[in-house]
Order: sequence, then C-alpha cells, then structure tokens
Amino acid sequence: MNELIGRVFHFEKSIFPAHGELFGKLTTHGQEPKALMISCADSRIVPEQIMQAQPGDLFVCRNAGNIVPPYATMNGGVTSTVEYAVAALGVRDIIVCGHSDCGAMKALSDPTGLEAMPNVAAWLRHGAAAEHIVSTCHGELEGKERVRAISLENIIAQISHLRTHPAVAAAIARGEMTLHGWFVDIHAGQVLGLDGDSGEFVALREDRDLPVALAARTRIATEFAEAAE
Amino acid sequence: MNELIGRVFHFEKSIFPAHGELFGKLTTHGQEPKALMISCADSRIVPEQIMQAQPGDLFVCRNAGNIVPPYATMNGGVTSTVEYAVAALGVRDIIVCGHSDCGAMKALSDPTGLEAMPNVAAWLRHGAAAEHIVSTCHGELEGKERVRAISLENIIAQISHLRTHPAVAAAIARGEMTLHGWFVDIHAGQVLGLDGDSGEFVALREDRDLPVALAARTRIATEFAEAAE
Amino acid sequence: MNELIGRVFHFEKSIFPAHGELFGKLTTHGQEPKALMISCADSRIVPEQIMQAQPGDLFVCRNAGNIVPPYATMNGGVTSTVEYAVAALGVRDIIVCGHSDCGAMKALSDPTGLEAMPNVAAWLRHGAAAEHIVSTCHGELEGKERVRAISLENIIAQISHLRTHPAVAAAIARGEMTLHGWFVDIHAGQVLGLDGDSGEFVALREDRDLPVALAARTRIATEFAEAAE
Amino acid sequence: MNELIGRVFHFEKSIFPAHGELFGKLTTHGQEPKALMISCADSRIVPEQIMQAQPGDLFVCRNAGNIVPPYATMNGGVTSTVEYAVAALGVRDIIVCGHSDCGAMKALSDPTGLEAMPNVAAWLRHGAAAEHIVSTCHGELEGKERVRAISLENIIAQISHLRTHPAVAAAIARGEMTLHGWFVDIHAGQVLGLDGDSGEFVALREDRDLPVALAARTRIATEFAEAAE
Amino acid sequence: MNELIGRVFHFEKSIFPAHGELFGKLTTHGQEPKALMISCADSRIVPEQIMQAQPGDLFVCRNAGNIVPPYATMNGGVTSTVEYAVAALGVRDIIVCGHSDCGAMKALSDPTGLEAMPNVAAWLRHGAAAEHIVSTCHGELEGKERVRAISLENIIAQISHLRTHPAVAAAIARGEMTLHGWFVDIHAGQVLGLDGDSGEFVALREDRDLPVALAARTRIATEFAEAAE
Amino acid sequence: MNELIGRVFHFEKSIFPAHGELFGKLTTHGQEPKALMISCADSRIVPEQIMQAQPGDLFVCRNAGNIVPPYATMNGGVTSTVEYAVAALGVRDIIVCGHSDCGAMKALSDPTGLEAMPNVAAWLRHGAAAEHIVSTCHGELEGKERVRAISLENIIAQISHLRTHPAVAAAIARGEMTLHGWFVDIHAGQVLGLDGDSGEFVALREDRDLPVALAARTRIATEFAEAAE
Ligand SMILES: [Zn+2]
Ligand SMILES: [Zn+2]
Ligand SMILES: [Zn+2]
Ligand SMILES: [Zn+2]
Ligand SMILES: [Zn+2]
Ligand SMILES: [Zn+2]
Repeated sequence: MNELIGRVFHFEKSIFPAHGELFGKLTTHGQEPKALMISCADSRIVPEQIMQAQPGDLFVCRNAGNIVPPYATMNGGVTSTVEYAVAALGVRDIIVCGHSDCGAMKALSDPTGLEAMPNVAAWLRHGAAAEHIVSTCHGELEGKERVRAISLENIIAQISHLRTHPAVAAAIARGEMTLHGWFVDIHAGQVLGLDGDSGEFVALREDRDLPVALAARTRIATEFAEAAE
Repeated sequence: MNELIGRVFHFEKSIFPAHGELFGKLTTHGQEPKALMISCADSRIVPEQIMQAQPGDLFVCRNAGNIVPPYATMNGGVTSTVEYAVAALGVRDIIVCGHSDCGAMKALSDPTGLEAMPNVAAWLRHGAAAEHIVSTCHGELEGKERVRAISLENIIAQISHLRTHPAVAAAIARGEMTLHGWFVDIHAGQVLGLDGDSGEFVALREDRDLPVALAARTRIATEFAEAAE
Repeated sequence: MNELIGRVFHFEKSIFPAHGELFGKLTTHGQEPKALMISCADSRIVPEQIMQAQPGDLFVCRNAGNIVPPYATMNGGVTSTVEYAVAALGVRDIIVCGHSDCGAMKALSDPTGLEAMPNVAAWLRHGAAAEHIVSTCHGELEGKERVRAISLENIIAQISHLRTHPAVAAAIARGEMTLHGWFVDIHAGQVLGLDGDSGEFVALREDRDLPVALAARTRIATEFAEAAE
Repeated sequence: MNELIGRVFHFEKSIFPAHGELFGKLTTHGQEPKALMISCADSRIVPEQIMQAQPGDLFVCRNAGNIVPPYATMNGGVTSTVEYAVAALGVRDIIVCGHSDCGAMKALSDPTGLEAMPNVAAWLRHGAAAEHIVSTCHGELEGKERVRAISLENIIAQISHLRTHPAVAAAIARGEMTLHGWFVDIHAGQVLGLDGDSGEFVALREDRDLPVALAARTRIATEFAEAAE
Repeated sequence: MNELIGRVFHFEKSIFPAHGELFGKLTTHGQEPKALMISCADSRIVPEQIMQAQPGDLFVCRNAGNIVPPYATMNGGVTSTVEYAVAALGVRDIIVCGHSDCGAMKALSDPTGLEAMPNVAAWLRHGAAAEHIVSTCHGELEGKERVRAISLENIIAQISHLRTHPAVAAAIARGEMTLHGWFVDIHAGQVLGLDGDSGEFVALREDRDLPVALAARTRIATEFAEAAE
Repeated sequence: MNELIGRVFHFEKSIFPAHGELFGKLTTHGQEPKALMISCADSRIVPEQIMQAQPGDLFVCRNAGNIVPPYATMNGGVTSTVEYAVAALGVRDIIVCGHSDCGAMKALSDPTGLEAMPNVAAWLRHGAAAEHIVSTCHGELEGKERVRAISLENIIAQISHLRTHPAVAAAIARGEMTLHGWFVDIHAGQVLGLDGDSGEFVALREDRDLPVALAARTRIATEFAEAAE
C-alpha cells in the first residue's frame, strides 16, 4: 500500500480529536474563511503552511500554474470557486500565489514535451500574455531567468483575469476587495508581493507595509462625480 | 428598392473619384490606421464622424453594446480584430466607445423582452460585471439613470476585458499602448472620457488634457527592480 | 497625443451642432435603421461613406474579414448583432460587404505569419469553405487572383452562414428579407454585387437592376401546397 | 435476457454466411457508399429499409431529430461524419430525412417536459429556425399540423446548415453534390421530397422527376464571368 | 439519377404496404424500442441486420467511429440521443458497437491524411484514451493488429464515457441498465462481446451466456449500508 | 490589514528555516509527489492535514465540490492538473475527496439561491448524475440525509469522470493506477472510503484493508486473450 495513503488513520485517531473544539465550532457555525488563495497544485507549496492557517481560515483553489481563466460564457472550476468565495462566503481578500521552479511555468517558457500533454498545453494558453510579454519585452532572458520573469508576469496576468469576474469587479467597485499577487521562492525561502502601483514585486517584510496588487478603495461614483462638476 | 441601398451608386460616381488621390495612396501603401475603435452597431453612432476620420484613419470593430469578451480559449470576432489591429497593424491606441440611449445597455438594465433574443441575452453576459456593480453599489438608481450608470460601468468592464488579451497586455508592458474609454452622449452632444486614475468620466475639453483610461507607461521590469534592491 | 484622437473635439464643437435637428429626432424617436451592414474592420472601408448614409441610416457590424459565424449554441458578437437588428429593429435588408486587398482574406489565402496570431487563424476558419472551394475548383489561381476569388467566395459563404440564423431564416420564409453580397474594389472604385440566381458578381450600375443575393419572396407554405394537390 | 439482443446469434449463423460474397467484396475493396443519409434515431425509421439498401450502399448518420449543426469551430459527431463522407469517401448525394410523429419535433413544438432532458433541449436549439418560422409565419397552426410544419421546416433548416460545411460547400461549387430533403410519413406510407426551387415538399412518384433540394450544377466561376464582361 | 436514390419508390409501393399491420401498430402506439444501439456510420454495418431487428425494435445512433463523448456542459447529438433513449423511452440496454476495418479507427491509429479533415481529427480526440492505451501498453503492435486493438479499446472507452451521462448513471444505480460492448468482425462474420468482469472480448455463442460490459445489478444503497454497520 | 494575511511573515522567519533540509532537497531534486488529491476548496478540509503530508508529498487540485469534469475537447484546470500529475509526474494514486456539510453539495441538493451564482450552477452540472441518482433511487431522502447521499454519489460520479481521461485510462489499463474515493465527515471525525466492488462507503480502519474505488490490476490484453482461445 502507498505509504502516504495509510497516514490517514493518524488523522482520525490523533489529529481530529486534538482539534475537537475547533472542528466542533466549524461544523456548528459553518466556515467563514478570511481569504481565498489561488495557488499551484505543486506538492511543495502548501497554502496553509505558507499562511500559517488553521482549518477554517483559507478557502483554497489549486490547479497547475495557479491560473484564473478570464470570465467568459464558458464555465469552469476556478470561475465557480471564485464566485462561491465572493458571493456566498463574502471573502474580501484574494491571493494569487505563484512559486519558483513551477513545472507549468517552465512549460509555458519552453513547450517542448507538451505534445504529449495537449490539455496542459491548452490550459497554459491562459498564461499566453505572460509569455508574450517576456518574449517581446525581455527577449534576452533565457533559462531560469526567463522562467522566473514569466512566473511573475503570469501572476499579474491572472490578477488581470480575476478582475473580469463580475463578483470581483463589483466588490472592487464597492471598495470591499483587496487583491494580492505573491511569489513564493522556495529556493530562497522568500515571499515576494506585487506592488500594483509600481508594478514591482518586492520582498514581504514585517517592518514595512504589505504590498498589495490592488488596494480596497471606494471608487468615486462615476455618475455623480460628473454631475457635480 | 430600399432607398438607402440605391445610394451606393453615388459612391462610385462621385465620392470615390473625388477622393482618388487618397484611395490611390491607400491601395498602394496599404492601411496604417492610427487607432482601433470598438463601438456599438447603433446607427446613430458613426465612429468616423465622431473622430472626424478619413478612410485609412480608423480600424473599427462594431457590435451590439461595444463589447470586448475577455481573452479565452474560445475565439470570436472581437478577439481576432483586436489581435489583428495590435499584432499585424501595430495600433497603439484603442478606444472603447459607448453611448447614450443604447439598446444593448437598456436590455442589460432590464432584460424584459430578451427571451425572444437568446443570443443577445448571452452576449450581454459579457456586461454582467457592469450590471452587477450598479445593482449592488447603486441599487437606488432607476430608469435612465440606471442605464447611464450601467453604460459607463460597461465601458470600464470592457477595458478590463481588453487588458486580458495577450497582444494588448504585452503592448501595455512595453509602454506602447494607450487605452481610452469614451461615452458619446447623443442627447447633449457631449463626449465623456474615462480618467483611469480617478475612475471618473469627465467631459473632453480642448483646454485640458485628454483623460485616458490607461496611459502608455513603461513598466519597471519586475525582475530587475527586485534584483537591484 | 495621437493627432487623430484629438479631432474628437471638433465633433463636439462643430459637427454635432450642425446636425442638431437630425440628432434631436434620432434621440427622441430612437433609431430605425434601413439596413444592417456587415463589413470589414479595415480602415479604408467606411460603410457610411460607401452607402452615403447619415446617422440613423445604417446598423453596422464590423470585424476582421466581414465574417458571420453560422448560428450555433456558441454565442458571439455577430450573432447577437444580427439577432438584435432583425428581431428588435425589424431590419429587412442585410448587406455582407467584402473588399479588395483585405488582410484577412490574404491570410486565408496564405496563412504564413498566422502562427503569431492564433485567434485570427481560428476566426478565419469561418472562411474555410471559401478557401476550400477556390483551392479545389480553381487550383490554378495564385497571388492576387487567388485572394480575389477567395474574397468573393467568402462573401457567398458568409451569406450562407447568415441564412442559418433563426431570425433571418424566419424573415426569409415570411418574404421580408433581402440579402445582399457586395465587394468593394478600392483599386477600381467599383462595387460588385452578387446575383444569387447566376452565382455571379456583377458591377452595380444605375441603369440596371440591383443584383441581390437573395430576393425577398414569400415562400409557398409547404404544408398547404402539398395538401392542396 | 433482452430477447432482441439474443437475435444477434442469428446474424452470425445465417445472415452473414448467406451474404458471404457481398461481405467478401466489401472487406476486400472497402466501402464505396453511394449516398450519405442523415436521419432520426427513431426505431421505426430504418434508412436501409426505406432506401432498399444493401450493406455497402448507404453511409448513415442518425441522431434525435435528424439534426445537422451548422459548421463551426465547435466540433461534433455530425460534422465529422459529413466531413468523412464527402472528403474521404467522395459521397455526392446527401439526404436529410425527417419523419412523421417524431418525438424530437414534438418537443420542438411543445417543450413541456424538456426540463428533465436538458441536453435534448439544447440540441433542439439547432432546430430553432424551424420553430421560429412556423410560429411567426403560421401562428394559427396547432397540434399535429404544427408538428408537421415544424418537421418540414426543420428539414429545410438542416439542409441550410449542411451548406455551411466546407466540404459540402466546395462540392456544391464544383457541381458535384446533390442535396435531398425527404419526409417519411409513416402513417400514410408516403415519402415527400423537397423541391428546392419552389420550396414545396411534393410526393415522390415514379412517373415524375425526383424533386431535389439542390441540384448539382456547376457554378459559373465568379472571377472569370465578371472579367469577361 | 443516383440509382440508389431511385429505389425509394419501391419502399412506398411494396415494402410499406407489406408491413402495413406493423406500421399501423407503431403509429398508433408510438415506438417502444428494446435497446439503443450506438454504431458506426460505416455502410457495411447495418444495425438492424446485425440485430435482425424490425422497425420499432432498435433506437439507433450512428456516427463515424461509434463515439460517445463524455457527458459535459457542451451538448451534442450523441448526448441528446442517449438522454432521449433513456429518459423519454425507458431503454434499458445500450450497445456500443464497433467493427473491423473501421476508417475512423484507422485514422486514430495513423493520423496521416487527417490534416484535410480537421473535424474528424477533433472528433477522434474522444478516442484518445484508446490510442493512448494501445501505444503505451502494446507499443509493439503494428498495422492491422494495432487498429484492431485500438478498435476494441475504443469500445471500452466509449462505454466508460457512457457511464458519465446522468440518465445512464442513474439507471445503473437503480439496477435497470445493462451495457454491451460489441465488435463486429466483418471479415470473419463474427461478433465479439466485452466481458466487463474480465476485460476480455469473447465470441458471442448461443451455447454460453451473453457476455455483458456491465450487468444490471442493484447497488447497495451507500447511505444505509454504512448506517447499518 | 487582514490578520491572516499578515501571518505569512512567520513562514519566512520561522517555518521555512525550520524545514531547511526538506526544502533544500525538494528544490534540488524537484517534486515526486506520491499521490494526487482532488478535494473541495472548503477551508475546513486541509488535504495535507488529513493525509498528514509534508511538503512534496501530495499534488493537490482543489475546487468547489471536488469536481472532475469528464474528459472532453473543452479544456479546463482539473483536466490539465490530472494530465500533468499522471503524464509528467507519474502519480499512481488519485484520491477524490468529498466531505460533510459541503456548500456545493447543498446547492446541488437544493439550488435555491443559485440564480445569483450562475457559474456555480453551471459547474455543478458536472454533479448532475449524483443528484439524479439520489432523486430517482432515494426520492424519500430529505435535508441532511439527502445532501449526504448526494455527496457520496458525487464522489462516485467524479471517479467515473476521472476514468474517461486518457492518461488515467491508460494507467488503469497498464495496471499502474489505484483510484480512491474518500468522504471526510468533519462532524464525526471519520473518513469513509469507497469499496468499488460492493459500491459501499466504509469507515477506514487500521485493522482492516484500505477500501479502494479501483484497485491497480493488469488488464488481460483483449487482443491476445481472445486469440489464444
Ligand atoms: Zn507550479
Ligand atoms: Zn448601443
Ligand atoms: Zn478586410
Ligand atoms: Zn424522429
Ligand atoms: Zn467505422
Ligand atoms: Zn465542499
């Protein structure tokens, strides 16, 4: 038997009982997660570990490449998960989280070998903007540097997709949504955050403000601003 | 015979010969349009009239509601026209142009009657964010005020969709793309422009800077900015 | 500032006031366009110029290649615009208008270079019949002659697509729809029209009947014709 | 055991051996069917019986409602079967065959009960033009008369879809394709055929020409006809 | 005139009258088919001949390659036909029937030549599992042996798709559905049937039980079984 | 600032350094996850906690309702993640993991309120088989019992979808894939596992064999088994 699979017994016997009070509260009151995290399926990136989150803290959507397809008439899992998080659970923070050494980003950078994975290839078209930007703006980059640049641009691209989803767009307009773009460098043990104003990814540091991709800000109602002129 | 259709003879006999030099140049050198305009199919909104454009000036995409579906694996006419304008023609200005009294926006505001037009209904889902924003942020608006608010938010939504298209995203990253959001008020004879910084639509006036939805600006290369810290 | 963009001020200051009465009527009574024109996004082809149309005359759909996807469960902008024109506005004439030196038709004829424009490539699949016909029926054609032949066949193909749209099919069956297929030769300053009976494109001339792709004609009710035998 | 299923033994023991020569030839030379028949899945309509066809004679596509979706970028079984028949097998006659008392057509006429069959409902959207024509042109029809009218118009609609398929369109342009629209009235034991010129369905009779929906006819090459003027 | 097409007169004059009583009953009572057969469009495989079926016995869906796309939000003809057979007609036996020398399976085995048939190529993606299995598990097979192996695996794959359709899945859970996988070898005049338990295809023989892909069997209600522990 | 978001600093300062050796190995050798887990986005269900997994152990796909769309030509995130896990990483165990009190399953059971979440509604169509089975086989169930039954059937349905994916189907045929269907009851602190042979969900207990939905088993090559008869 797969040794990993067998560890589930330990959950039942030890872990669950040890968290009895928490699980009791979570089943009685239901979940009220504080954020939605969209991250990669990569086994090395455990959202709850990075966020130091307990059960109940973090609504999580994971897929190869931490992709968010733009909103469209064609429905899918990410779209539904985003809609549920915002419309049903009232989540006000969404983190798109990429990482170093990502297999999906490497494939976006160099599609050799994707012929055998046609669906991965098609899925990665949602990262086409990232690849296109790096190829046309930083054509000189190669290898790991190119992959890293694409990974960062991919986070920006997915946040741009996220903003096309009606529930997200409306929460932004109401000033009730903060968007975060993070990059976990598992080599350096460092987390970078996108500063939406400057377009830079900067290291998260406790001694300075957390950079955000888009800060919650009430938009001046277009209608009335003009009328008041 | 439809009287309008018959007027085509006039084009051949008088208009074309009168613009002989211009058409000669345009056929010899090909087109080099200065902007892409995405506007409504509405018969009252003639892009070339609003822009005072000559043949050769303006690449034009028109559909009901001046909609730009977000970039996706599902292809369509607007996506292709945007791609062609930016990738093949090198256009550096894109104008999304809405207008007052728009039938599509009225239907988005009040879908009564859309059962008989299932495709219009489906197409308008691309404006769902606009309707959702106005309904949840300005629930008190009704009638013409609600339609106007939705029309303005729809322009913002379509610009947000436009930014998901790889060719546009890359041109933005290179600092080579300016996006414009205009609203033609055919009752007041006034054109409003979106100021992307404040989120307001303001009247275009010759005596002040043209408001832009997104100004062309070279983005600091994320990769190197961080490295240089 | 893009010099073209700045010309909009002129519209507000001079053009709109000069057409005050017309725009006043159009905003009071709404639009009642006399025809729907589906034409290319090409900057050199201005539908209102070719038709000598005033604001309010012509409902216009424009995209790269003057394409009309066949009616299907997958919705898009052309389908919606056609549905709105026929079902909501009661339009009874539809013109599919192609033109010479069309970039889309050149790409259909020779796809070299389309790898960089995957969406244009996908969109042009709606013209596959045209390319297939010319390649199999007129395999000897090359260069400009091949492009011209494909452009003409493309107009026929799009009209054939147009007939699959329920609103159009029903209007045809009621004898209330005339379809037109036009080709604007901007080199020769000539407009050709499809004669649906002979399958030929002939020059439009004031001294002979306007050729139509499909004339409005009440169809003999299939049900009763047979019953009366 | 399902009694019908058991009858297969009879095929092996008696039928196959009795047709040994025919099957031998068909396996040695491969199939060369003389026509493609697109008919309903209805158990009462056996294409080979109606056509008095032997194995090898008839390439057959069957689905609920003898539907042919219009050609589109979205692929399906009918599209592929049509393409294979024309491009790989060189079929030059296609018959779209509807019939009386068709469950699909009844559901198109009166969708009550379709909530439990969402896919049938969606599939029948490909017959929307037929329903729309009958509702707007013959609003007075009810019950069986309405179903019959829709069934006939559905055949016309599917033939119109068929013409949008590139392989079919090209074969038509080459003058190598004849299209047939048939209606099998299983109550009257009568087969009607669409006369494409008049738009009528007329009884097939041995003593008069077979009516065809579209006769094979070489189209005058558009390019050269005009040039020769 | 196509000689085959003309044979239809014979149906009206001789065949229909000869089956007057059967057709009378079928029009009065409607159809109650005993099984749904999903088979190839191939002209040499006549489902009613193989099953020795009379009009009214067999609901039939035919397409190139006897494909059943998996259930999805994207609708098509096979999905609808399956839904109608099970939900509207109450069919309790479904046969997926492949055959030897199948053009579709040959194309799945060796896609050379499919460039000219893009839709067939796309449709055959629904058989990708079959090709993938044979290529990775039996990489040593070539030519006819490879085609045969793919044809058999394709039947298994399509049955696996069939089980994803809600109406089928529910009938299975109720113990009211038997699935059959057959392979007609038209060279040997033999019919093989899939034994779902062993995964083998075995010759159908009157002197032993009919092998079934999935036998009708009431599933132990998961809910109560556990509760009763 | 959202208090949860701020905890990320702790990861950098304490957690990452404490796991230095593990992360070092994982970045040097890349990931080699032992299983793919497809589970719900629900914040209370942390896959790594239930499996007692370390970084590097578990490839994880999460979405609302632990859905696996069936393989189709329409691509999405789950399909790509499955393909990547099996084809690129060689995963041989896939766990579909549902849970009690699931918001998605409640919505599948009672769609009231889903009008405001059209994408969740569309996504849940992939669980239609589960709802259909419970409604038709256990129509007497209500409330929590109905939701629980649907949640269990949904796991079965998603495993059935999983088997349509070519990479999974081929691994099954090679005898290299074990499928698991788990249900985490967060009220009882119990994990149930699907026994594919009996169709029951049984409690996982250390003192008896782990139930599996589908055991890895080399399939007898259909081709040769029959030939050897
Ligand atoms: Zn990754
Ligand atoms: Zn408008
Ligand atoms: Zn053009
Ligand atoms: Zn029928
Ligand atoms: Zn076949
Ligand atoms: Zn859940």
